[in-house]
Amino acid sequence: MPRVVRGSTWSARLGGLAIAACLFGALPALAMDGIVEKKVFEMPSYTTVGGGTIKNVRIGWESYGKLNEAKDNAILITHFFSGNSHAAGKYKPEDAAPGYWDSIIGPGKPLDTDKYFIISSDTLVNLSPKDPTVVTTGPASINPDTGKPYGMSFPIVTIKDFVNVQKALIDSLGIKSLQAVMGGSMGSLQAFEWAADHPDMVKRVIAVIGGPEADPFLIGWLNLWAAPIKLDPNWNNGDYYGKAEPKAGLTEALKLVTLHARHWKWADAAFGRKWAEEGKDPKAAMGNQYAIEAWLDKAASSRAAVSDANHFLYLVKANQTFVTGNGPSLEDGLAKIKAPVLLIPSADDLVFPPDRTMRPLKERLEKQGNTVEYSEAITSTLGHLDGVANIAKAGDTISQFLAK
Amino acid sequence: MPRVVRGSTWSARLGGLAIAACLFGALPALAMDGIVEKKVFEMPSYTTVGGGTIKNVRIGWESYGKLNEAKDNAILITHFFSGNSHAAGKYKPEDAAPGYWDSIIGPGKPLDTDKYFIISSDTLVNLSPKDPTVVTTGPASINPDTGKPYGMSFPIVTIKDFVNVQKALIDSLGIKSLQAVMGGSMGSLQAFEWAADHPDMVKRVIAVIGGPEADPFLIGWLNLWAAPIKLDPNWNNGDYYGKAEPKAGLTEALKLVTLHARHWKWADAAFGRKWAEEGKDPKAAMGNQYAIEAWLDKAASSRAAVSDANHFLYLVKANQTFVTGNGPSLEDGLAKIKAPVLLIPSADDLVFPPDRTMRPLKERLEKQGNTVEYSEAITSTLGHLDGVANIAKAGDTISQFLAK
Repeated sequence: MPRVVRGSTWSARLGGLAIAACLFGALPALAMDGIVEKKVFEMPSYTTVGGGTIKNVRIGWESYGKLNEAKDNAILITHFFSGNSHAAGKYKPEDAAPGYWDSIIGPGKPLDTDKYFIISSDTLVNLSPKDPTVVTTGPASINPDTGKPYGMSFPIVTIKDFVNVQKALIDSLGIKSLQAVMGGSMGSLQAFEWAADHPDMVKRVIAVIGGPEADPFLIGWLNLWAAPIKLDPNWNNGDYYGKAEPKAGLTEALKLVTLHARHWKWADAAFGRKWAEEGKDPKAAMGNQYAIEAWLDKAASSRAAVSDANHFLYLVKANQTFVTGNGPSLEDGLAKIKAPVLLIPSADDLVFPPDRTMRPLKERLEKQGNTVEYSEAITSTLGHLDGVANIAKAGDTISQFLAK
Repeated sequence: MPRVVRGSTWSARLGGLAIAACLFGALPALAMDGIVEKKVFEMPSYTTVGGGTIKNVRIGWESYGKLNEAKDNAILITHFFSGNSHAAGKYKPEDAAPGYWDSIIGPGKPLDTDKYFIISSDTLVNLSPKDPTVVTTGPASINPDTGKPYGMSFPIVTIKDFVNVQKALIDSLGIKSLQAVMGGSMGSLQAFEWAADHPDMVKRVIAVIGGPEADPFLIGWLNLWAAPIKLDPNWNNGDYYGKAEPKAGLTEALKLVTLHARHWKWADAAFGRKWAEEGKDPKAAMGNQYAIEAWLDKAASSRAAVSDANHFLYLVKANQTFVTGNGPSLEDGLAKIKAPVLLIPSADDLVFPPDRTMRPLKERLEKQGNTVEYSEAITSTLGHLDGVANIAKAGDTISQFLAK
């Protein structure tokens, strides 16, 4: 059994296989069983773009592969709204599933850990502080000045703040350039911000199911995602720590996120018009449900069990306020980006519809002289979620983009 | 000033113009100022498809144009989720706006009141019982057996129940056939049900922004629409009449309906990333909003003022349970439809996406031998709402379909 150590153990575990590969040719694609661990990056104090101070900042991060001596083989992965830095591997062999992009991260995979040092970083204010593998500072953290959770006194944070803290992490590793910053959904917002803020450091951008700003319709949707939390009397203006928590509101909020990130093709295939319980016709009682309703309740309820309602609200704000470069205009922000950009939308994305997000972005970037590639290869039946579940379909495109 | 009388006064008002038209050629298109009134159809008792009994049933209805002697020039209009039978004209000249499809209903318009007798009927359980022009029976009505509002003891109703009550209205007028049944969104569900239940009576179906069933993804969305109401402690399992009402939950529910029925093109054009208030940067405080958020709050709040939370829940159930013909299968229901069908989707509809709803329906109906026409002429920037706001763009298609 592989030991869990600080840093990825891909290389150690695969020593024998690597030798075999030298002798017998290409390394075979491996099962999703790399063992990884969550690491912690700490800052004694961080001042937000808005001028707020957060003491004892911690974010979780993971890495896969080895940093080379020149320290120039790093790729940074930034995560989506409800995700965290667990992008690949498993913490324990018996984990039910590996990290979310395990299908493209590993030896011989598109993000090849024999070649690249993959760093996957949390954002501030991770949605799921009750997940034991999440260590990231947010409103549920203890404010050292008061000894109590921040709640709504936590400073407002932006995508640029997420990038600033990640930059400090990258600096702490002595890394001066990144082969790529790659992220899905909210992760793509961070990737664009990285490329605008550190144009000489970011060699490539790989943006999946996202966009260069929160468009007005998305701003409206994010408001609706947040609304159920505020309706729950237990939310109590964010002051609920140590009391009954707004679980019902948070569950409804997560139901919205869950459904919005999917598609009717998924609903048809997964449920059809099936009832939730045999013999309980939805026409017979107001409480009788269809299968998709019961599934939404259950899926969101288990997500709510590890999530925090205030963190949800802060993430909504961070997404709503996002424009690449953090203002004054999207045009200004995009003008700062020098790197070639690979755009990977899902054609059926309802959260970041490509016709509003990546298609016009492609044109804008090309117009200003950037190299842009565009692939809808991931499109399947899941809508927005294709960017996580079906990323392997863009594997060749990603490999080739990284090799250029 | 025209008098308000029972029945439309189009003919009376336009007598002079009609003579002028005979003398000088075609009648010019008229401003939306026909004066109409709400009428009431009553049934001493109605037994629902599910076996429940509702006493003293009332639904509102309106009519435009004149029923001819043969009583064979009638067209029935059925309404959408948040609408009512006010499809054309104004109650008073000073009304801010005419009925929702006024652009196609009137003398010389596609639904030509010089030729057709247009009947527009409420459904049971209208969303807005506090609107003084809405008279329709639902959970907020007094149960004659208890002297108190039904609340959640009101029987579950289906789209077929809506059609059954409308059928009684049409029978009461001595009408034996309908030139067409036409409806938008939930109105289209009623139109399909009419055509399946009364195939020898319905000569044409005109279905706008809808579908022949609630698909599983829509069932999920309808669950989410309803959720904020149940989160509001004032909802109190539907027992709130005479007490504080669940206004906050109903407002959030209506925000969801409002946004879901629109599109990013609308949000871009109407708001962009504008702030709600000058000097109040949304990045500066959790409560500072973007313009689209403030608009949603305001629009939904004014809709909530005339709406009823329990009615909302009953309408959600009626829509979720809909399959043309009321089961056992969609195939069975569609097989009953004999009439030619005109399908008018909006290409950008997020509630009834044409690729899931009207496109496959066209194929199914053609396969079973129906005449089907299909037009996306209404598509503009409003998504689902194009079916109301831009129906006039399908005016010629509708005229020609009615003339065949």
